[in-house]
Amino acid sequence: MDATRRPIVVVLHGAERPPRMTTIEQNATVRYTTSHHLAEALPGADVLLVWDLRSTALAQVWPAANGLRWVHAAAAGVGHLAIPELINSEVALTNARGIFDEPVAEYVLTVMLAFAKDLPTTMRLQQRRTWMKRETERLAGSSALIIGTGPIGRAIGRKLRAVGVAVSGAGQAARESDPDFDSVVALTDLRAALPKHDHVIVALPLSPATTGLIDAHALRAMRPTARLVTIGRRGLIVTADLLDALDSGTIAGAAIEVFADEPLSPSSPLWDMPNVLISPHMSGDVKGWRDELVRLFADNLDRYIREEPLLNVVDKRLYRR
Amino acid sequence: MDATRRPIVVVLHGAERPPRMTTIEQNATVRYTTSHHLAEALPGADVLLVWDLRSTALAQVWPAANGLRWVHAAAAGVGHLAIPELINSEVALTNARGIFDEPVAEYVLTVMLAFAKDLPTTMRLQQRRTWMKRETERLAGSSALIIGTGPIGRAIGRKLRAVGVAVSGAGQAARESDPDFDSVVALTDLRAALPKHDHVIVALPLSPATTGLIDAHALRAMRPTARLVTIGRRGLIVTADLLDALDSGTIAGAAIEVFADEPLSPSSPLWDMPNVLISPHMSGDVKGWRDELVRLFADNLDRYIREEPLLNVVDKRLYRR
Repeated sequence: MDATRRPIVVVLHGAERPPRMTTIEQNATVRYTTSHHLAEALPGADVLLVWDLRSTALAQVWPAANGLRWVHAAAAGVGHLAIPELINSEVALTNARGIFDEPVAEYVLTVMLAFAKDLPTTMRLQQRRTWMKRETERLAGSSALIIGTGPIGRAIGRKLRAVGVAVSGAGQAARESDPDFDSVVALTDLRAALPKHDHVIVALPLSPATTGLIDAHALRAMRPTARLVTIGRRGLIVTADLLDALDSGTIAGAAIEVFADEPLSPSSPLWDMPNVLISPHMSGDVKGWRDELVRLFADNLDRYIREEPLLNVVDKRLYRR
Repeated sequence: MDATRRPIVVVLHGAERPPRMTTIEQNATVRYTTSHHLAEALPGADVLLVWDLRSTALAQVWPAANGLRWVHAAAAGVGHLAIPELINSEVALTNARGIFDEPVAEYVLTVMLAFAKDLPTTMRLQQRRTWMKRETERLAGSSALIIGTGPIGRAIGRKLRAVGVAVSGAGQAARESDPDFDSVVALTDLRAALPKHDHVIVALPLSPATTGLIDAHALRAMRPTARLVTIGRRGLIVTADLLDALDSGTIAGAAIEVFADEPLSPSSPLWDMPNVLISPHMSGDVKGWRDELVRLFADNLDRYIREEPLLNVVDKRLYRR
């Protein structure tokens, strides 16, 4: 890169611009745009910061990205950015992994404990001013299978182990020894592992290999007392099959944080199911998270300017079809 | 004790008798009674197992306990048993401490996480089929003061530390070094410690020294962002003061599991407060808990018969006025 030239950074935002951009604006020429004007902002730009993760504009205006060298997604999942034009190009793709690991792990522990202690019933009874003792469950001593052994899956594994849960993983390859899991089974052997656990947690990126992974067959392999927690990307779970499984008692319950279509439609039958906890894809959004996202991009931009290796490079091969 | 004579055990129960009494019935003569007939059951009995913890009958019929050597409470709190007749006698008093430590610690972690992740709002929004993202809090990195450094307080301390909470204790004496707490302040210095923490957890037995400990002054010393979790005995907290503090924003919220009068009256204003989580004194009641309570008494009865030291002897001096 020409060291005398400041990089041109396009910031693709939605209703809100990213906060605390001062440092970035000192080191780069920043063009702010929404999806509508992305085509005009891209020509000559070196870097694209995707702040609006729901935008599908890049696929449509890709030819305008004539100087693009790097795309950074301000999220853990790269979502709409996994387009063939980018995936098959030389343009680097990075994400915000790391920032969400701990908050998401806390969310998963929260919903698992809420189910174990039957907190949803307790809250419904409170609304009816009704005192009704029930027996609840211990979480310690139970077992969990975490599908996905990436940074978020590992953070969940460490968090659950800390409170006495026996934790196995399901990843690309089986292995006996792993710092964060008692053992790791291969995703191809998932069906055999599912019946052995009280909790199944889906923490995978969506890729061609994982689309529809949790279908009727997988759900039937789970224990009828088991609960599903999913923080993974849309498309991992076959929603109709999950609805059937919850309705018929194939599994005991589910906490769902990410949906095929967001926001979840008010007409979805999921809202009313007593054994379902719905949260609006916010488990990573702890106070200060936007500041942290910008700080990570600023660090990476420093690396870009100094021609050092970028942090959080996404392995684009996983997204090739 | 006369080794040729089987001990006579009176079981004071309410609507339900304790389960799995076979072993005990093999080793002792068991008289089952409710409060109404306690006076007839006690004469000549060696041991009283108090299964109905809400019974106040013992105080009224104490003179009938003419051979009593040991009273066992099937609970962590000894409640109505802390009567002067028993406290000032030579009769041993034991309780079920230990059995509830882990389940109660899990409950405390559950409500703290539920508040941090704003789960009550998430559930209310789910009932209204409303998708609304909010920013939530991380629990790791926050600080907690556990008032009460007994076995339950310690179990809570270990559980919270395991998920990254900085944990201090408040106990009889201050100390710098403690296996379960970063530091322990003396209860007499409680007021100075309260403003330093994000969470205040009350896990004390009720005794003359602790009655009314959490009053308006203590609540005003807490941070306005702090939340109170109480699993301690009735009487520790001045309910009217807590209501005021919750209503006026003196503190941010409370999870209450034990009440001055149980069941909590349907007319209590606590039920409707949006920043209050009410649970019906059931945090220790995990599946199998009654079996565990009976198993502990059976172990202790073996010790009694073998004239070995009893487990879980209550320090009756704490209850002398």
